[in-house]
Amino acid sequence: MAPPPDRERLGEFDIIAHFFAPLATDPASLGLTDDAALLRGGSRDDLVVTTDTLIDTVHFLPGDPPEAIGHKALAVSLSDLAAKGAEPIAYLLALSLPEDDSLMQSPEWLEGLAKGLEQLQEEAGAALIGGDTTGTPGPLTLTITAIGRVPEGQAVLRSRAKPSDGLYVSGTIGDAALGLRLLRYPSLAERWGLSEDEAAYLVNRYREPHPRTTLAPALRHHANGAIDLSDGLGGDLDKLCIASGLQARVEASRVPLSEPATKACQSDPALLPALLGGGDDYEILAAIPANRSRAFEIDAERAGVRVTRIGSVDAGPPTTAVFIGADGAPMNLERRSFSHF
Amino acid sequence: MAPPPDRERLGEFDIIAHFFAPLATDPASLGLTDDAALLRGGSRDDLVVTTDTLIDTVHFLPGDPPEAIGHKALAVSLSDLAAKGAEPIAYLLALSLPEDDSLMQSPEWLEGLAKGLEQLQEEAGAALIGGDTTGTPGPLTLTITAIGRVPEGQAVLRSRAKPSDGLYVSGTIGDAALGLRLLRYPSLAERWGLSEDEAAYLVNRYREPHPRTTLAPALRHHANGAIDLSDGLGGDLDKLCIASGLQARVEASRVPLSEPATKACQSDPALLPALLGGGDDYEILAAIPANRSRAFEIDAERAGVRVTRIGSVDAGPPTTAVFIGADGAPMNLERRSFSHF
Repeated sequence: MAPPPDRERLGEFDIIAHFFAPLATDPASLGLTDDAALLRGGSRDDLVVTTDTLIDTVHFLPGDPPEAIGHKALAVSLSDLAAKGAEPIAYLLALSLPEDDSLMQSPEWLEGLAKGLEQLQEEAGAALIGGDTTGTPGPLTLTITAIGRVPEGQAVLRSRAKPSDGLYVSGTIGDAALGLRLLRYPSLAERWGLSEDEAAYLVNRYREPHPRTTLAPALRHHANGAIDLSDGLGGDLDKLCIASGLQARVEASRVPLSEPATKACQSDPALLPALLGGGDDYEILAAIPANRSRAFEIDAERAGVRVTRIGSVDAGPPTTAVFIGADGAPMNLERRSFSHF
Repeated sequence: MAPPPDRERLGEFDIIAHFFAPLATDPASLGLTDDAALLRGGSRDDLVVTTDTLIDTVHFLPGDPPEAIGHKALAVSLSDLAAKGAEPIAYLLALSLPEDDSLMQSPEWLEGLAKGLEQLQEEAGAALIGGDTTGTPGPLTLTITAIGRVPEGQAVLRSRAKPSDGLYVSGTIGDAALGLRLLRYPSLAERWGLSEDEAAYLVNRYREPHPRTTLAPALRHHANGAIDLSDGLGGDLDKLCIASGLQARVEASRVPLSEPATKACQSDPALLPALLGGGDDYEILAAIPANRSRAFEIDAERAGVRVTRIGSVDAGPPTTAVFIGADGAPMNLERRSFSHF
């Protein structure tokens, strides 16, 4: 497809100079003019490094606004850092733009992408320090590698939960799974009895998840183990249990739902298992020892994050976590975890 | 396409556990069981971080052996580290496997990919510390983020070349460009008068470039500026000149060619400009001050790398580098630089 006549085709260097250099606010980036970034040594902090790929139609929907795509690509990696108790420092963006897509190569679209990244990086205190921009015959693909720091030895791992720890989640669960359904089948909003604002809230929770960066210090100070909820509460809890060699039990009625999600579940009670297994919430699941529970709740509240105790882990061979329903019987979560693979 | 009947479809966790966990030989990887890697702090070294994406048919050819693809994906990033004078420590691999390609999801193919990575990481002293594995409706895509270390303040940047510095290249130039042509048009081997071994040598230089990791200390000690030759000598020299604010002049007859490349140029002299502008060599171009030339040559030789002085940089507004031909007149390089975008 030919580029629109009113503008030249943008080259790799134009794209970097015009749209990404303004995000390179840290000297580590070398102004994005070199092939590498340079992080000064000499700190006693440990570094946490994580990488995640997002692909059009796999991890977001075709036609999603570029601001939302930029936001989500960075949010996913910052969420991993938050779960480790790390403060974001920097990130690298490997961007593969579809060769024949004149929209995604337009200044307006690229500016939207950069804006989505910029808003979140400013909130989180991170900066773009490097990357790679290339064309692809395939779909839009973004890989972000994020780097965070954590005081020496204080990183929170998913493998360190201990028997009798309480299980906490941040925020509310299942909004993103409902938001994705609404994007695919907009008429569900009416069936679920949702107002326009309520439906928009759920859609936005899917499109622009907010990483729980501010919760990192409370996790460092109080959590034995933690994981971010990217693939779904059921599946990610299973991962925490397997890594820590524990069993888990969750009271489904304690799992915090937003008002729109509560409304949807009231109109269709069969939704609850789907919410508990649905991905993309990017909330944090943490294992907190009993003698730290109160302090964790207080520190989380100070950080502006609501946390809710939903169950506990215990000794015993790791099995899939048990979710107890309103009738006192274990629930069947069907699909326990969302897999993009 | 259905998977072959004799094996199950491999999931993300099977792939990580069977093929990639053996590459995670550094405790920083947390055994690839977490969402992030953990690098211990407390070192005075600076860290160099670089990310590169390779896409099927864009950066390598359809049907290339998986060993070569794994090798090349890592080589490209290690080459950037070498040009900064950095020693490799670790890398993360974001791997997007075509959803419907049963070959690329087969154990044999994945084992080949892992083997290509393993051989090079052992040579270079780096280890896999993290990644992301996902399916894609598009082509095979690999993004590697590599991390290296360099003593405090000693990183070599492309922006620090100084007037009168000599320009050196490692190894030989243009082999990869010839190798790519041979892969596309195998009958050229005969036209260029190459034996089977000579043609295979050039193809291998394209498929499995060797990053000049061992040259890093000599670059740190002696180079004012350096860049790796990924896009072509002409284009990458221009980048060094622009970043350093200098002009460059190269004697084309001094540019070192391999024996097969010399043979090909003798049979078709029109090839020389294409070699000087052709990409994928992953050699190093370095700017060395006159009083360091001899020491650089000696240290490079000790590191097992041949380096050749091909010209110099000088003060003056940056322009595209001048390549002087055998007739004493400036050459026209046609395509100065290979762009994958």
